[in-house]
Amino acid sequence: MNFGYTMPTHVVVGRGCVRANADMLRLGGHALIVTGRSSAQNGARRDVIAALQSNGQRYTVFEGVTPNPTLGCVREGLGVLRESGADFVIGVGGGSPMDAAKAIALLAVQPRADGDVFSGGYALDALPMAHVPTTAGTGSEVTQYAILTDERMRTKTSISSPALFPKVAFLDGSYTDTLPLRTTVHTALDAFSHAAESMLKTSSSPMSEMLARESLRILYPLFGSLSAPTCEERDRLLYAACLAGMAIAQTGTTIVHGMGYFLTYDFGIDHGRANGLLLGETFRLCEEKGVPAMRAICAACGADTEEICETVSRLLGAREAIPRARLEEYAARTMSHKNIRKCKFDPSKADVLRIFLRSFPA
Amino acid sequence: MNFGYTMPTHVVVGRGCVRANADMLRLGGHALIVTGRSSAQNGARRDVIAALQSNGQRYTVFEGVTPNPTLGCVREGLGVLRESGADFVIGVGGGSPMDAAKAIALLAVQPRADGDVFSGGYALDALPMAHVPTTAGTGSEVTQYAILTDERMRTKTSISSPALFPKVAFLDGSYTDTLPLRTTVHTALDAFSHAAESMLKTSSSPMSEMLARESLRILYPLFGSLSAPTCEERDRLLYAACLAGMAIAQTGTTIVHGMGYFLTYDFGIDHGRANGLLLGETFRLCEEKGVPAMRAICAACGADTEEICETVSRLLGAREAIPRARLEEYAARTMSHKNIRKCKFDPSKADVLRIFLRSFPA
Repeated sequence: MNFGYTMPTHVVVGRGCVRANADMLRLGGHALIVTGRSSAQNGARRDVIAALQSNGQRYTVFEGVTPNPTLGCVREGLGVLRESGADFVIGVGGGSPMDAAKAIALLAVQPRADGDVFSGGYALDALPMAHVPTTAGTGSEVTQYAILTDERMRTKTSISSPALFPKVAFLDGSYTDTLPLRTTVHTALDAFSHAAESMLKTSSSPMSEMLARESLRILYPLFGSLSAPTCEERDRLLYAACLAGMAIAQTGTTIVHGMGYFLTYDFGIDHGRANGLLLGETFRLCEEKGVPAMRAICAACGADTEEICETVSRLLGAREAIPRARLEEYAARTMSHKNIRKCKFDPSKADVLRIFLRSFPA
Repeated sequence: MNFGYTMPTHVVVGRGCVRANADMLRLGGHALIVTGRSSAQNGARRDVIAALQSNGQRYTVFEGVTPNPTLGCVREGLGVLRESGADFVIGVGGGSPMDAAKAIALLAVQPRADGDVFSGGYALDALPMAHVPTTAGTGSEVTQYAILTDERMRTKTSISSPALFPKVAFLDGSYTDTLPLRTTVHTALDAFSHAAESMLKTSSSPMSEMLARESLRILYPLFGSLSAPTCEERDRLLYAACLAGMAIAQTGTTIVHGMGYFLTYDFGIDHGRANGLLLGETFRLCEEKGVPAMRAICAACGADTEEICETVSRLLGAREAIPRARLEEYAARTMSHKNIRKCKFDPSKADVLRIFLRSFPA
């Protein structure tokens, strides 16, 4: 037994939890609310603003975050932050607003030129943050990662720093009640992928495995209900996504994420969908290689590898057509991705190409 | 779903973890090592001092902590702290040194007269702390509780404050290798009691239940090996005790703890043993009352209530004789204990008396 465990974010769960715990938003005098457009509809923004007002705190809304945020978007948010004089940050939305919020909170305190943003070595210092997820997928509310579009590398790349753990995360399932089916499915696949990938890392530990198993145990049976989840099922999805986030906060993700980022960058495929598209063939590879963690994943799901692969495939529906030449290019680029390390299934270039080709049959 | 979750302590697990992570002890310039006498033998004190020396940090050892520390002991430690100029605290030992260390770290920053120590309302401020458990039981390294002897109330009483979470906990099973059988058994029963009691609180949550179930799942099968645990089993005991600590950090303990404190105060019965002595009859009461959490405890242990009760009884051996008049007095005093609240088995005075009387048959 040899591992570390850290999860410093205080998590509050329950419908109405933002207003009921307004006190926990006392992280400064003036909040920058970093969000996309949908938070104006789902109730999250309204609740955050009401809580800030009840605390007598000032706020500025930066709603310019688009999916797969770029450094340009982060710089724009930083400009709004400086102009407003905000001294803490609230990320409200899916992974994109939360990750943009994290980058803003970090770069506000530790400025970097664009070329250096992804080169690591950050000190333990960022503006304090609260996060309010409005999708049940990313788990970003409990991780030290911010994933941004990296134009230079033509993919998405993560910033990882303990400074990026939010102080508090508010999980209110009601913000996910109005999600379209497509988003519900893709974000659930993202969460599922996090939990499973965490178990497939050599950096997994008894703690990360407990979190991942519990996440899979909750998520997998909900895959049959994604077309019309009850409120209670929405709450469970959100909680399971958070558990999966806690798991990858310990382990990181596998090459599935690294591979999927190319698909998102070049073809605009939703992040969770990109993971889902690659997950089945990754599982089949693990099964063939006899990776013990694959058995643990099956046990947590209560299904065998083939059943899981078919369930995920059904959720995805028709697959995109990706030209073989692109897949071969991605396989080559994948081998230099940082996530190629510490995968229990030790993927060779042939393995990676096989996953790509079988995931997108001609 | 409606709950909060917090566990801000960074946990490091593994043999040799103190020296290997000496950097994590950089919590100040001068450490007060709060400990009992045994840490000089089991290697923990040596490793902590070596780590501090490698960091170039100063240290002072206060080894005056005795079992079930009093306020007098804490005051003595505070005196040593002030005289030494130490600016952070390292608790090394079982629950007693760790809890004394917590009280010292808290009262150093927020002084209180003896009569006010247990009255709560502490601000979120204490000297930074690292903890090194040398028994596999208390879980104090990951909780916000410090349990001290309360001479005024003739029992033990807890101080509870988020300020009491240590910054870091080092779990090195080697420090438990030389524990006498009696201590191994009693501390394992303490951990078991924490996990089970956490599940019997109405304040339990999906997170606390996950932690408690995992703790029970690891602990119960080890009960057959306590007479001569392997190193690997020692490591698992220590980890399971930590998980149980994380669980009670969310929920608190039940009346079993409140009842046991009388036995420790008046008869010097080890804390874990006191819990163990009362646990079986508490389980039987829960079984009779049809408390669903009792079924969850059984499922996690892989045994039925009667099997669990008999296993615990076997570990305890011959029970102490406690005069009936004392048990009746304790039952009355138990009803005003703060832990009487939020127990899923909703104990009446008759229930409490029944647990006491059946636990100590005349």
